[in-house]
Amino acid sequence: MVKELTVAVVGATGAVGQEMLKGLEERNFPITKLKALAAPEEAGTLVRFRGEDHVVEAAAPESFEGCQIALFAAGEVVRWLGPEAVKRGAVVVDNSNTFRMDPTVPLIVPEVNPEDIRNHQGIIANPNCSTIIMVVALKPLHDAARIKRVVVSTYQAVSGAGVAGLKELEVQSKQLLAEEKIKPEVFQHQIGFNLIPHIDVFEENGYTKEELKMLYETRKIMHEPEMKVSATAVRVPVFRSHSESINIETEKKLTAAEARQILSRAPGIIVQDDPGQNKYPMPVFTAHTDEVFVGRIREDLSIENGLNFWVAADQIRKGAAINTIQIAEILVRENLV
Amino acid sequence: MVKELTVAVVGATGAVGQEMLKGLEERNFPITKLKALAAPEEAGTLVRFRGEDHVVEAAAPESFEGCQIALFAAGEVVRWLGPEAVKRGAVVVDNSNTFRMDPTVPLIVPEVNPEDIRNHQGIIANPNCSTIIMVVALKPLHDAARIKRVVVSTYQAVSGAGVAGLKELEVQSKQLLAEEKIKPEVFQHQIGFNLIPHIDVFEENGYTKEELKMLYETRKIMHEPEMKVSATAVRVPVFRSHSESINIETEKKLTAAEARQILSRAPGIIVQDDPGQNKYPMPVFTAHTDEVFVGRIREDLSIENGLNFWVAADQIRKGAAINTIQIAEILVRENLV
Repeated sequence: MVKELTVAVVGATGAVGQEMLKGLEERNFPITKLKALAAPEEAGTLVRFRGEDHVVEAAAPESFEGCQIALFAAGEVVRWLGPEAVKRGAVVVDNSNTFRMDPTVPLIVPEVNPEDIRNHQGIIANPNCSTIIMVVALKPLHDAARIKRVVVSTYQAVSGAGVAGLKELEVQSKQLLAEEKIKPEVFQHQIGFNLIPHIDVFEENGYTKEELKMLYETRKIMHEPEMKVSATAVRVPVFRSHSESINIETEKKLTAAEARQILSRAPGIIVQDDPGQNKYPMPVFTAHTDEVFVGRIREDLSIENGLNFWVAADQIRKGAAINTIQIAEILVRENLV
Repeated sequence: MVKELTVAVVGATGAVGQEMLKGLEERNFPITKLKALAAPEEAGTLVRFRGEDHVVEAAAPESFEGCQIALFAAGEVVRWLGPEAVKRGAVVVDNSNTFRMDPTVPLIVPEVNPEDIRNHQGIIANPNCSTIIMVVALKPLHDAARIKRVVVSTYQAVSGAGVAGLKELEVQSKQLLAEEKIKPEVFQHQIGFNLIPHIDVFEENGYTKEELKMLYETRKIMHEPEMKVSATAVRVPVFRSHSESINIETEKKLTAAEARQILSRAPGIIVQDDPGQNKYPMPVFTAHTDEVFVGRIREDLSIENGLNFWVAADQIRKGAAINTIQIAEILVRENLV
């Protein structure tokens, strides 16, 4: 056990940073001192933690002196500040895309590959939210029947674009309902009462980076460099919680009942699958929870060994903040800091 | 050419019926007399057609005397009134699910199987909206490369539940934005800022009827009794236009460029596929149009011969009213009435 545990939260005023503070508090993370850090323009603002206000400081290399853990939810700035934190003895857990595919950086979903944490060299990466939500559900099925191919279509909430994304959906929806003009700023197009099949930037092959993350990150997390994943990522007018329609083909046959049982026993999953009672995962009801909800589990009628199912999970929590904290919890539990 | 063409529209006050009147007018359908029919409780209300008010009559067997064509958008009532209309010499084109899988009833998408109209015995069925939108895009690709399997996830607008569905999304969104209590009536759960992976009723195998329609109707329309379709149908908080994320596996390889070219030349399709310019189909921009919009066309990286693409189309128009009128246009053009 560590006696002193100073934890820096970088990006403490953002959507994910705020949820990290909440999560650290709720989960009784054994923190002794919090350093709330953010971009210089946020310095001086207050954030709440364990009933007290904390003054946000501008994140700088010296901010990490004496920190054992630094949780980053601040985008690309980790490229510069992450190594500075490591140099000062902190283990960095980063939410951004920056280091995810770096072969020296473990990419961790605690329910899937916690053992990879031990290989860290100072920096640990938190996967993309859509990937996290998907692999939590894929892993137990893969262990049971070996997944050969995944076809996934996402239904992603605006919270993926942070506080500004949440605000844009709210303001735009009000304007549209009042028949006022709208002006998209955060998203490429109108998001209120619309769908945008475009998240992150496009690559040459016609896929968005978001879609390719679901392929490459899944392979890395699951240690399956050949795993086949075909993804379509779509932004939907929902505030929180991403949903995904997932089709898998497995080597071994799994009945819907078997899959349901396997998923029920798996960590981090709540099976919500009772169509007769209109029970299935839905984003409004999974918002502000820490689990991945799975339902609509049924055998694919189009192939020998296939399953369809539907997942939903709070992308700011399990898809980002909570997954990061779970990684930090392992670091503490296994005396890795 | 028919000199006199009396057309009955049954369900003239509903969402689809209203759109039929609009479509008949816009497309200059050679109608000489309109009979606006509806349920008895709607009798006496007025509907607008070609600048004139028409008094809605309660639909009854005798309503169809002298009608050459009867367009039904009135649900199950066609089971009783459809044969009565046929008995009186009308050809019935029905929007409901009632006769779609009846082997004696042609199920028509004019871009796909117009020739089947000739086999009609008085009643012609209009497919399910999600099916129509999908098969318009599948057909030209199937002709070029033979589709072996389809995995589709839908993003269906509330207009699928008619005027009441549209109203519920509007009212509920306002209430939610005002932090007021909501009470779902049309949909099983909250639809404002939510997703409901449940359209139509559940079958024993865990699929909804909506999902199975996309399998069985597609097979019938495309004359491919073995075609494999795995569908997941989801209601989204969008007013009009359904969208679909479609993955296909073909026998012959098609590059994205080839698919784009094939689709560009196909009837009833507008290819909107320029990711660099943020151009792809979106429901708000396809609402109130008659075509199926296709974009995000890209080669599936997970199989040898696969494609992913994204379609959107106005479900009340191409998904229902316009498809029905197009069928009626063929009846007139080919002297089948």
